[in-house]
Amino acid sequence: MRRKIAFKFIGKVLVGFSILFLFPSIIAIIYRSSLIPFIIPQAISLIIGLLLNRIKVEEKNFFAKDGFFIVSLSWILISIIGCLPFVINGDCKFIDALFETVSGFTTTGATIFKNVEALDKSILFWRSFSHFIGGMGVLAFVMTIIPLASNDKSMHLLKAEMPGPKVAKLVPNMRTTLLYLYLIYIGLTFIEFILLLIGGMNVLDSLLISFGTAGTGGFSVLNNSLASYSVFSKVVVALFMFLFGVNFNVYYLILIKNFKSAFKSEELRVYALLYFLAVILVIINTLPLIGNIGETILQAVFHVSSFMTSTGYSIGDVNIYPTNCRVVVLLLMLISACAGSTCGGFKISRLVICVKCIIRDLRKIIYPNRVEAIKFEGQIVSEEVVKSTNVFLFLYAILIILIMFVVSFDGYSLETTMNAVFTTFANVGLSFKINNFSIFSDLSKIVMSLGMLLGRLEIFPLISLFIDFKGK
Amino acid sequence: MRRKIAFKFIGKVLVGFSILFLFPSIIAIIYRSSLIPFIIPQAISLIIGLLLNRIKVEEKNFFAKDGFFIVSLSWILISIIGCLPFVINGDCKFIDALFETVSGFTTTGATIFKNVEALDKSILFWRSFSHFIGGMGVLAFVMTIIPLASNDKSMHLLKAEMPGPKVAKLVPNMRTTLLYLYLIYIGLTFIEFILLLIGGMNVLDSLLISFGTAGTGGFSVLNNSLASYSVFSKVVVALFMFLFGVNFNVYYLILIKNFKSAFKSEELRVYALLYFLAVILVIINTLPLIGNIGETILQAVFHVSSFMTSTGYSIGDVNIYPTNCRVVVLLLMLISACAGSTCGGFKISRLVICVKCIIRDLRKIIYPNRVEAIKFEGQIVSEEVVKSTNVFLFLYAILIILIMFVVSFDGYSLETTMNAVFTTFANVGLSFKINNFSIFSDLSKIVMSLGMLLGRLEIFPLISLFIDFKGK
Repeated sequence: MRRKIAFKFIGKVLVGFSILFLFPSIIAIIYRSSLIPFIIPQAISLIIGLLLNRIKVEEKNFFAKDGFFIVSLSWILISIIGCLPFVINGDCKFIDALFETVSGFTTTGATIFKNVEALDKSILFWRSFSHFIGGMGVLAFVMTIIPLASNDKSMHLLKAEMPGPKVAKLVPNMRTTLLYLYLIYIGLTFIEFILLLIGGMNVLDSLLISFGTAGTGGFSVLNNSLASYSVFSKVVVALFMFLFGVNFNVYYLILIKNFKSAFKSEELRVYALLYFLAVILVIINTLPLIGNIGETILQAVFHVSSFMTSTGYSIGDVNIYPTNCRVVVLLLMLISACAGSTCGGFKISRLVICVKCIIRDLRKIIYPNRVEAIKFEGQIVSEEVVKSTNVFLFLYAILIILIMFVVSFDGYSLETTMNAVFTTFANVGLSFKINNFSIFSDLSKIVMSLGMLLGRLEIFPLISLFIDFKGK
Repeated sequence: MRRKIAFKFIGKVLVGFSILFLFPSIIAIIYRSSLIPFIIPQAISLIIGLLLNRIKVEEKNFFAKDGFFIVSLSWILISIIGCLPFVINGDCKFIDALFETVSGFTTTGATIFKNVEALDKSILFWRSFSHFIGGMGVLAFVMTIIPLASNDKSMHLLKAEMPGPKVAKLVPNMRTTLLYLYLIYIGLTFIEFILLLIGGMNVLDSLLISFGTAGTGGFSVLNNSLASYSVFSKVVVALFMFLFGVNFNVYYLILIKNFKSAFKSEELRVYALLYFLAVILVIINTLPLIGNIGETILQAVFHVSSFMTSTGYSIGDVNIYPTNCRVVVLLLMLISACAGSTCGGFKISRLVICVKCIIRDLRKIIYPNRVEAIKFEGQIVSEEVVKSTNVFLFLYAILIILIMFVVSFDGYSLETTMNAVFTTFANVGLSFKINNFSIFSDLSKIVMSLGMLLGRLEIFPLISLFIDFKGK
């Protein structure tokens, strides 16, 4: 571990982060609320950032391990500094603010605020803006740091995150890659913003809802999430939730007019198929409860998009879902959408690899001597990646169970505990039975915050952070 | 697939099975109830068995694949014929009888009878005797058929079932192995029977409860399971439940006075540790609810034994358990006790291998060039086995989810659905919220019966049965 270069890089991240406080400050000026909640954390971020940036380093090489260290520590520091506006503005206590901010940056969208409509517009902006920042962070992480990891022999653990065509391989360097990704990300967000404006939503709401969709976050501006907006707005948001669940490489391929490759994506097809089946199931099961066929379809499409892409917006009561829909929704939460998107969860790419692995091993019973390689997106998946994907699955399950165990001490029912942990770990935010996370104990909030970070950072980096400190 | 030899072998199994109907017939004679319910299935089993046994075979070689075919089909046929006594005696309809019998032979112990005390003694005997038969079947399966699989290249999938010292390797041939195993099995059952008699339990109850403990089944003789027996009886049953959760190889080692190897067993230690921790947790959490410290300890020890060894007896209301205990109990159910015992579930051996696999992969992040082999019980576990164990885990999870999805259509709460599926798939039988499985639909009963068989036969054999028919 080259600590020096890592800390210097974190310094740069913090300097960059301090600049982002200018945006809520502008909103504060427009709505004439206090600037203090943003100036103090901005100053802190800037000072620590500049101090760290003064570290002198000789080596310039940069390994995936360092990348993991930087990403994990940056995410933690940004969450701690980023929660200060809530604390300084007196909106909630520190632990709650931290939970809310981690929920924001990890694009989860689970909230501890009972009445968001009472918050200052600038605070509301900062809250939703954290989704947008988090989404960019995730893209940078999965699209540039992890491919770095692929070249590093030790980092095979995360290769499964980014199978298929890679922007990173198609363009000359990391900066250009990021530029393309951010152009797509900001472009899509902008289109949604414009469409929402056209649909009659006010400017601030349109902007914040677009932020929440882009990051697949889910913090809303009104207490009833998106229920009171127009049908047009709901359709737009549902569509964009689905779109932000697609691997960004697909958009890159579309951008360079390689439509054939784009629509041949195996992951995209599985994603669309699962989505379609889930929507049908929910429609059939909720139609007798809602009555109106149009409203049933709208709600089914919207909520399946919301759950599956780990966004977490809602436009109606999901608690009406019968048990079979709940089972499917909880599963979709854990699986989530495509790798290389801003979604959380296990990712469809990993699911496909695991399922193919099982089919192969079962086939071996009949054809013992046949050697079969697992293919994904037309490429052979190395056995190391297959094994790691299985390990990832196991670790995913173990961590969920451990967090559930801690949260279970709060004494809520097993189902409530499960909902809370699944929805935070998979970065969804919406769940059955829980409207608000303020009901949980401080310990549970901290553990679920850790869960959100673990889920967001694909588990291994954050764990390696702890091992690293211990190991060296 | 050498079909002929397989069917001939199944014929032998059915002839052997027909003999077993003599035992409930004796009970029927003693208690002066009808013999018809046992004579008819006995005749059916004998006739089909003799017919199949007449098949002429040239080849005498026997592969694991054939073993799997024989085991799966035998188990299914025995369940169908074995359920006839209930049907003929008019105790319940066919689907219920099948569920009950599968529950018996798979040593699950989930019942559809609301009032077992009203059943004929001979029927009660047959019900509990099915646990005893099932336990013997499981031992034969995991101790002889699966080690056969280890020599067959295609069968690496199940190797993880039997790590550590193997009776099969210590004694000359399969027959001697089985003889030793059955001696231990019947010996332990006999000791429990004698102890229960000494404790003042009547002869029939002592016998049936011993059958249920030996097979880690859980069918009881009274409606309140074991709640109304003496403390001494409860302690004896708790002890023997724990003992039947130990790998039978350990007893073999003790029998040949190799105490050092016996107590060095890694799996035994992990089993004892998990057991101890769970008991402590349950005691702490249920003491305020039960009040009496003695009763609390007794119930905790008894119920943890019952859940962990997949037996399913109870001596009190487990529904008082708070959520944290429920999380742990559901986990223990799925994990269950040692491989090479009569328990169901994932098995501690597999758990240890999976956990070691994760630790190794995490270590690789720090020491990328170090090649580490996973050791279990002092022996290196081959990478094929490691991979298969991970695949097994995934398949285990997928099947549970699929069954849950089907059962969820019955419309019970998510927690109830989960309890029902976990407890049947892991062959436990006891669960929270459900006293009786008659509440479920026929479809759910069939699917859960399939789940019990899948769980019991370590998934792969039963699945290979279907693949085989399709594949050739």
